[in-house]
Amino acid sequence: MQALNPTPSGNPATASEATALAAAAPGWSFSERPPSLFRRFEFASYAQTRTFLDRLAELQESSGVTAQNINFGRTYVNVTLSATGAALSPAEYALAAELGRLATA
Amino acid sequence: MQALNPTPSGNPATASEATALAAAAPGWSFSERPPSLFRRFEFASYAQTRTFLDRLAELQESSGVTAQNINFGRTYVNVTLSATGAALSPAEYALAAELGRLATA
Repeated sequence: MQALNPTPSGNPATASEATALAAAAPGWSFSERPPSLFRRFEFASYAQTRTFLDRLAELQESSGVTAQNINFGRTYVNVTLSATGAALSPAEYALAAELGRLATA
Repeated sequence: MQALNPTPSGNPATASEATALAAAAPGWSFSERPPSLFRRFEFASYAQTRTFLDRLAELQESSGVTAQNINFGRTYVNVTLSATGAALSPAEYALAAELGRLATA
């Protein structure tokens, strides 16, 4: 599993890398312009939403990757991760994969 | 200044109350359908954004009022407070006023 420690190399993932990495981040939708990953997480309670948001904040700190936008209400969190360079880097895909694991844990 | 302790009475503020309360929450835009308050807060750094978000979470807990939507990126937070009943109650206006003070503190 892609460990969450690749510092944001900023080097864009190559096409084959992107395909491999996208496989590691199921449930996310990818868009080209700008290159970004989007996913909606839904929760049974506000407390679960809060727990996810707090972990997401910690993961952003530890990974150095900051979501381009986070949009949440009582029981949902929409996360958009955008490329800082020309393309998404392994660090964004790793954060996406980690958030996916977090939400299903 | 409106103290932040009116538990969400759910009783809609009367028209004159709404006017008075809106005066206590400058900087917010009010919309009718659904009755809600919206404001965009901008910050100089992600650290300031984080501090505001953490305080916002605490205020939601202490006031019992949960924003209908919070949408944020590195240096901005968009907050939407919606009525839970037919109209906004003093508790929503009080939270709006408190967030305004927080952002200018």
